[in-house]
Amino acid sequence: MEATQIVLASRPKGTPTKDNFRFENIALPALKEGEVLLEPVYASVDPYMRGRMSDAKSYVPPFQVNAPMEGGAVAKVLESKSELLRAGDMVLGALPWATKSIASAEKLQKIDASLAPSSYYLGILGMPGLTAYFGLLDIGKPKAGETVVVSGAAGAVGLVVGQLAKIQGCRVVGLAGSEEKVALLKAEFGYDEVINYKTTKDLDTALKAACPSGVDVYFDNVGGEITDAVIRNINFHARIVLCGQIALYNETAPSSGPRFLPMILTRSALIQGFIVSNYSERFPEGIQQLVKWVKEGKLHYQETILEGFDRLPEAFLGLFSGENKGKMLVKI
Amino acid sequence: MEATQIVLASRPKGTPTKDNFRFENIALPALKEGEVLLEPVYASVDPYMRGRMSDAKSYVPPFQVNAPMEGGAVAKVLESKSELLRAGDMVLGALPWATKSIASAEKLQKIDASLAPSSYYLGILGMPGLTAYFGLLDIGKPKAGETVVVSGAAGAVGLVVGQLAKIQGCRVVGLAGSEEKVALLKAEFGYDEVINYKTTKDLDTALKAACPSGVDVYFDNVGGEITDAVIRNINFHARIVLCGQIALYNETAPSSGPRFLPMILTRSALIQGFIVSNYSERFPEGIQQLVKWVKEGKLHYQETILEGFDRLPEAFLGLFSGENKGKMLVKI
Repeated sequence: MEATQIVLASRPKGTPTKDNFRFENIALPALKEGEVLLEPVYASVDPYMRGRMSDAKSYVPPFQVNAPMEGGAVAKVLESKSELLRAGDMVLGALPWATKSIASAEKLQKIDASLAPSSYYLGILGMPGLTAYFGLLDIGKPKAGETVVVSGAAGAVGLVVGQLAKIQGCRVVGLAGSEEKVALLKAEFGYDEVINYKTTKDLDTALKAACPSGVDVYFDNVGGEITDAVIRNINFHARIVLCGQIALYNETAPSSGPRFLPMILTRSALIQGFIVSNYSERFPEGIQQLVKWVKEGKLHYQETILEGFDRLPEAFLGLFSGENKGKMLVKI
Repeated sequence: MEATQIVLASRPKGTPTKDNFRFENIALPALKEGEVLLEPVYASVDPYMRGRMSDAKSYVPPFQVNAPMEGGAVAKVLESKSELLRAGDMVLGALPWATKSIASAEKLQKIDASLAPSSYYLGILGMPGLTAYFGLLDIGKPKAGETVVVSGAAGAVGLVVGQLAKIQGCRVVGLAGSEEKVALLKAEFGYDEVINYKTTKDLDTALKAACPSGVDVYFDNVGGEITDAVIRNINFHARIVLCGQIALYNETAPSSGPRFLPMILTRSALIQGFIVSNYSERFPEGIQQLVKWVKEGKLHYQETILEGFDRLPEAFLGLFSGENKGKMLVKI
C-alpha cells in the first residue's frame, strides 16, 4: 500500500517555513493483529506543534527530524484487524501527516458523527473546546458581572472561551488581529468589545476603555506585548489563565519584557499555566457539557478549512500569521 | 503630653533616603473615652512600607506626606480610658512612628508576654511568621522530598519559610546576600544549601547544582534576576509563592526582564501573589501552630534589633541593603 507523508526536514530557527517540511512516498507494511488501516478525513494544525518542532524539553516529546509530523486527525477505518473497530468507522487519534496510515486500534477513539459533524471532534468537542472549558471554568472561575479578556479571541480556543464567559454572565473583551475578525466576534460570538491589536497604537488606553471595571480574568493564548498591557489593568484577585504564548513560540532566544510580578503581588493575582491533558480524567464531563450547549444553540462554532493534503504545511504556517478564524483544519 | 514623631517628609524617587523623613515634636491631646495612651517598646520595619511611601494604588493606602509613618509595634499601655485594656498591658497594633501615641483600644490586640518574648509578635508570631506559614503551606503546598527554594532566605519571612519546609520533609535551598548569612542559615536554620547571590556569577549553574531534582516550590521575597534564574529551573507543576519583590520596590519605572511565561505554561506552573491579610480569618490557627513549633524547639528565630527611636529610618533603609538577619526591629 502506497502513501504520501510529510516529514520534519529540519528544525526551524525562528518562524517555520515550508523548507522545514518534506513530502515522501512510502510503502505501508501489512496490517498486524490489533491494527487498522486509516484514511484521514480532517487533519488539525495547532500552535502547540511549534514546540514539538524544536528539541527543547516540553510536555510532549519533540518531533524527530526525518520522521513524519503528527497531529490530531479524524480518520475513516479502511481495513481492520481489531475487534474494536470495523471498516467504515470514524475515529479520532494522533496520526502522522500521511494520506494513509496504520495505527493500533486501542489508541483510537471512535466518534459518533451523528452527534456533531466529525470535524467538531478536532475543535469545539476536542482539544481546543476542552482547553477553553477547563481553562476558563476551572482556573479562571469567572463570576457573573466580572470582566473576562481573551487574547487570540478569534482562534480555535478563544472563540469558545468568549462564549463560555458570556454563558457565565461576564463582560467579554477580545483581542484579535483584523477588522474582519473584530466584526465576526462581535456579530456572531457575543463579544462585548474587541480590540484590533494590530491597528491600536495604545493598547493600555484601549483596554482601559473596554474594561472600565478592570480585568478579573485574562485568558491568554498569545503572550508578549498584549499580555503586558492586560496585566497592567488587572484587578485584585485577578486570574490569568495561561493557555498559549503563540507570539513567543518563534523566538530564537527569550525576549525581554516589563517585569510585572510586582503587579501580580500587589493584586494577589494568580497565574496558572496548564495543558488540557491535566484534565484528561474529566474530559467526558467537558464534552457532555459542550455538546449540550452546542445543541441548545448557546455555543456557535467556526472553522477555517483548507482543502487538500498538500496544504498541511501552509495551514500550519498560517496559524502564526493569524490566517484562521476559529479552528484551522485541512480536509484531506 | 509631649512626644516626638517621624513623618514622611517627601515621597522617595527610587531608593529612600534619610531626607524622606522628618522628626517633629508634637503635643498629644487628652484621652477620650475608649482610648489608651501608649509607649512603644518595639517598632517593626518591613519591606511593604516602601509601597506605602509612594502614592501608587496598592493593597494598603499610601502614607500621606507630612503625616507620621506607621507600622506594626508592640507597646505598653500607660493610661487607659477603655474597659478593654489596663495600664501595664502589652499590646500589638499599627501605630505611628512616635515616642508616645493615642489609639482606640478596639484596634489593639492584647498580647501574652508569658507565651513568648513580646518582640516575637512582630516576627515569628506576627505578620512575617503568618506570611511564611500561609504562603508556604497554603499556596506552596510542599510535599516531602520536594525541593523548596527561598529568596531573601535570611529575612524575617525567609527564615521561617525554610524551617517550615524542613518540617514538611523538603530539601531547602536559600538565596542570601552575605557569607555570614549563608553560614547562619546552614548552621542554625537547617537550610540544605544556600547560594550567596552577590558573589555567585552564574546563578543558573549554582541553582542547578543545589537543586539536582529541579525546583518544586519557589517562595519569592525578592524578584528580579534571582527570580529569573529560579524560574528557569522549575519542575512540572511548580508553585511560585509571590510574597515580596524587594529588588524592584525602589525602581522609578518598571524594568525589563526575560519573558518567562512560556516556562510557566509548559510546566503547568502556578504563580500566586498574596498578602497575609487575605488569611486574616485563619490567623488564630497559624499562631497556634507557630507557637507550638517554637515551644517544641522546631522553629528557631533571629532578630536584628537597633536601639533607639531615632534609628527607625536607619533600620528601615537597612532592609534594602540587606543589613538585617531575620526580623529587623527597633527597640524604642
